[in-house]
Amino acid sequence: MTYNSNTAVLLLSCPDRAGLVSRITHFLFERGGNIVDLDEHVSSDEGEFTIRVAWEMDNFSISKEDLKDAIAPLAKEFKAKWEIHFSEPAPKVVIFVSKFDHCLHDLLWRYKAGELNCEIKLIISNHPDLEPLAVFYNIPFYVFKISKENKVEQEQAEQKLLQENEIDTIVLARYMQILSDSFCSLYPNQIINIHHSFLPAFIGGNPYKQAYKRGVKIIGATSHYVTADLDEGPIIEQDVIRVTHKDSLKDMVRKGRDLERVVLARAVKAHLEKRVMVLNKRTIIFD
Amino acid sequence: MTYNSNTAVLLLSCPDRAGLVSRITHFLFERGGNIVDLDEHVSSDEGEFTIRVAWEMDNFSISKEDLKDAIAPLAKEFKAKWEIHFSEPAPKVVIFVSKFDHCLHDLLWRYKAGELNCEIKLIISNHPDLEPLAVFYNIPFYVFKISKENKVEQEQAEQKLLQENEIDTIVLARYMQILSDSFCSLYPNQIINIHHSFLPAFIGGNPYKQAYKRGVKIIGATSHYVTADLDEGPIIEQDVIRVTHKDSLKDMVRKGRDLERVVLARAVKAHLEKRVMVLNKRTIIFD
Amino acid sequence: MTYNSNTAVLLLSCPDRAGLVSRITHFLFERGGNIVDLDEHVSSDEGEFTIRVAWEMDNFSISKEDLKDAIAPLAKEFKAKWEIHFSEPAPKVVIFVSKFDHCLHDLLWRYKAGELNCEIKLIISNHPDLEPLAVFYNIPFYVFKISKENKVEQEQAEQKLLQENEIDTIVLARYMQILSDSFCSLYPNQIINIHHSFLPAFIGGNPYKQAYKRGVKIIGATSHYVTADLDEGPIIEQDVIRVTHKDSLKDMVRKGRDLERVVLARAVKAHLEKRVMVLNKRTIIFD
Amino acid sequence: MTYNSNTAVLLLSCPDRAGLVSRITHFLFERGGNIVDLDEHVSSDEGEFTIRVAWEMDNFSISKEDLKDAIAPLAKEFKAKWEIHFSEPAPKVVIFVSKFDHCLHDLLWRYKAGELNCEIKLIISNHPDLEPLAVFYNIPFYVFKISKENKVEQEQAEQKLLQENEIDTIVLARYMQILSDSFCSLYPNQIINIHHSFLPAFIGGNPYKQAYKRGVKIIGATSHYVTADLDEGPIIEQDVIRVTHKDSLKDMVRKGRDLERVVLARAVKAHLEKRVMVLNKRTIIFD
Repeated sequence: MTYNSNTAVLLLSCPDRAGLVSRITHFLFERGGNIVDLDEHVSSDEGEFTIRVAWEMDNFSISKEDLKDAIAPLAKEFKAKWEIHFSEPAPKVVIFVSKFDHCLHDLLWRYKAGELNCEIKLIISNHPDLEPLAVFYNIPFYVFKISKENKVEQEQAEQKLLQENEIDTIVLARYMQILSDSFCSLYPNQIINIHHSFLPAFIGGNPYKQAYKRGVKIIGATSHYVTADLDEGPIIEQDVIRVTHKDSLKDMVRKGRDLERVVLARAVKAHLEKRVMVLNKRTIIFD
Repeated sequence: MTYNSNTAVLLLSCPDRAGLVSRITHFLFERGGNIVDLDEHVSSDEGEFTIRVAWEMDNFSISKEDLKDAIAPLAKEFKAKWEIHFSEPAPKVVIFVSKFDHCLHDLLWRYKAGELNCEIKLIISNHPDLEPLAVFYNIPFYVFKISKENKVEQEQAEQKLLQENEIDTIVLARYMQILSDSFCSLYPNQIINIHHSFLPAFIGGNPYKQAYKRGVKIIGATSHYVTADLDEGPIIEQDVIRVTHKDSLKDMVRKGRDLERVVLARAVKAHLEKRVMVLNKRTIIFD
Repeated sequence: MTYNSNTAVLLLSCPDRAGLVSRITHFLFERGGNIVDLDEHVSSDEGEFTIRVAWEMDNFSISKEDLKDAIAPLAKEFKAKWEIHFSEPAPKVVIFVSKFDHCLHDLLWRYKAGELNCEIKLIISNHPDLEPLAVFYNIPFYVFKISKENKVEQEQAEQKLLQENEIDTIVLARYMQILSDSFCSLYPNQIINIHHSFLPAFIGGNPYKQAYKRGVKIIGATSHYVTADLDEGPIIEQDVIRVTHKDSLKDMVRKGRDLERVVLARAVKAHLEKRVMVLNKRTIIFD
Repeated sequence: MTYNSNTAVLLLSCPDRAGLVSRITHFLFERGGNIVDLDEHVSSDEGEFTIRVAWEMDNFSISKEDLKDAIAPLAKEFKAKWEIHFSEPAPKVVIFVSKFDHCLHDLLWRYKAGELNCEIKLIISNHPDLEPLAVFYNIPFYVFKISKENKVEQEQAEQKLLQENEIDTIVLARYMQILSDSFCSLYPNQIINIHHSFLPAFIGGNPYKQAYKRGVKIIGATSHYVTADLDEGPIIEQDVIRVTHKDSLKDMVRKGRDLERVVLARAVKAHLEKRVMVLNKRTIIFD
């Protein structure tokens, strides 16, 4: 579901009223924009209109630079929340990891296979262990060891590196450190985490152990945007797998790894393709 | 995903070209139609544009009667295949059954629970066994026993009954007779069957026995439109469930019943909500 | 996975040690018991041995009446927790309901279809609404209206009725009253409830609304034994289904009904076939 | 579900009769074998008894070398088909690949993570492309280019290499060549293939294209033992994923890769843990 040519994507939400789709599509049509994808929905519970529309920029009469100004009056009239994205240049991504390697393996393999429309600029870790994998895929690898004492300055150094690389998407691929609130607030709805439980069940540490003790018959994984409230950010994707009493805690961890990597990958892919919109702490996932 | 008010639905497909969405939505907007749902897609493999758009008829300036003529020029210009449907009056449905009762139970319960936007006018069977269930739900029940000798005339009698009741949707809820080609041709893409296998695996008779013998680890059910080619009609919905070597043939049949009823119900619901479009022997399911 | 003949089932757990399986099977073999099913497991985390063994009673040299005494010395030696059950007579079941009918419909249909090895003796409700369904299936239906004032005496009347009918399994099929602790304690691991969420997520009231607000991508249902701690009882079965932002709260409720009925039915079936053993607040489900 | 110590596994099937479990477990107990896992089943359809029993070899009075002779009389009496396996030394595995790398990546990562109880001795390919991956994991990589002309002699060279490495399990990880019948017959139930469809649907070439054209709503992958009949070997594991009309053929291939790797990995793991028994062209998977 990626596009062949240079496209723009508008994500917009506003209170529902007559004519919204027509007004928006007409606006694009009049300016030479060929729509390649459109998905809209009006929630019956809140009466909120949401739309994702993608169109080719090739014969579009407005330049990327002028597009925001051109759309602003329409959006203002609709009292809308909205974002504009372009398929090119591809989003610039950093992956944060610690010692667990399954999510990193998976993301890098997908990246090389062409599944992820982005440029993975660098990998940051608080441990040196996974550097050989970064080398295999030829991606710069930086180690920032984190302690209570140096956390503030290390995060500042990381942020500087991110800015230099014009990073717009941060993927926490089982990164075992908690980013500070100030770090999180710099990248709203741009930091994607994978939590190894079916949220909101088993918030916090050792979710597999919690699941084992509760005796659930299904375990899950959840990918979400990172906010200041730990494990409370908007959920992007979840999936589950069955377990039985024959599964030891170690078996759960093993089965969970298979979940974590696909759930994180699907969330990252949806985010990179601009299919995710955050509304009232929930996500709209356009497909 | 049903609508609160009187709505019209346009299903349309045509070769892709610039401006299709804009032209269609503008057509509706100019005539006072408030769009409540729109889903479109361009297949990258065939370059085929497909759209489903639903709008409220309340302030729409064109009457139901005149709508086809009003859209025809646009559709002709697009070289489109298209259909128009209205949420009211609700589609009129007949259910065909034999002796298995699980799908009938399920459909009637959903009907009564308000899940299915239709009017179930009658139930037809080649056996009298399920009449008490029809009585419980207060729906007329007719028995047409079928033999080689009387099949032609019995089908004609059934067709007469269907015409008198203005039936537009036929649901075969584990009906164990094969409708004649001429019967099928009277109701193109209006007859919905449930086949108790994951088609195209295990076409024909005794699919659970075939599945048992092949030693599959997953069994399925498939709901499809009925065409002259048995089990080859466009697939509307499928689902599956795990089996193990501990499942006897009888266990497979039992597990399969749970599949059959939900798969058939989902297919019927999608059909009744006009979310299904047949294109090149495949279905587009708008969600 | 039901048995054709009169069988006994031993459920036993104890600290692991050498020779347990051999000792148990030899005990049965020497007394003429033909084993038809045996599943055992040693948990690597706790070192706990659990076994379920079923054998035919036809040529077994010990009578039902004497079996407990005969096994007791062995069990004592193993320091085991254990239960003995017989396939005949079938367990006697009561179903409690309120106004929601989907679980009751499902259970009664399965009962009639021969899926549940039990005798459903009666249905108890705090509302008269579902009596016609009980009549359709020819099962006695009793109404006990519950208020703050009369709860104690009404429960006592219910318990009297249960005792008269020799009930050993209570199924709460979306029963909207909370049984008192004293009621629960009379039937340890014999009361089966269905909760309409993926426990431990969304404990308490309105779980679908909670799920909707949290924006989860998957909803679930959980069947568990009822204990004094609400929604904290040992989990017997769970299952899930995907939802999207297009699903309204009403859609979630509708999708959830399909989950609730199959999850409850699977739990009841496992319980009736004596495949469930409670250990450390978790269940072992022998398959 | 791997064992901590040196264990033996007996897989046995025979016509059901009284006392089988008791006789087998007593045989082991008398010789000092502590049973760590036992799963048995009697199929109600064929009356076939199957058992998998695993016991610790540490205090067992019979040596590995003498075990077959010791069990033979019992097995002969039961008219049984049977196999004995030992957890040590670990099975020796070769992986065959072509150019697709997803299954190889996955297997090697699991191997390194300790999920697969085996020794991957070498990787064989008909193309040099994946050598860097073998180098990364430090596993010998051999290229045998295959043409019509050289196939016989190349297979002989491969077989020589396999014999030198004492290979007992061959994994075809999207290997695009068909092994000759004589090759297959050398390794009965020891060659594991992954087919990228839900067999028996879409046998043969281009299954994703077949699936796309048929318009199925679910695609699958199947891992099976290789026999002389292509795609007809006993099925070890299957899994599925949903697709919609929005998925292009390319999307199906992408989604399918995620299936293929987990399905193959689960099949390989079950095989290596000696949980698979072939009976009447079907597999029994002990869990």
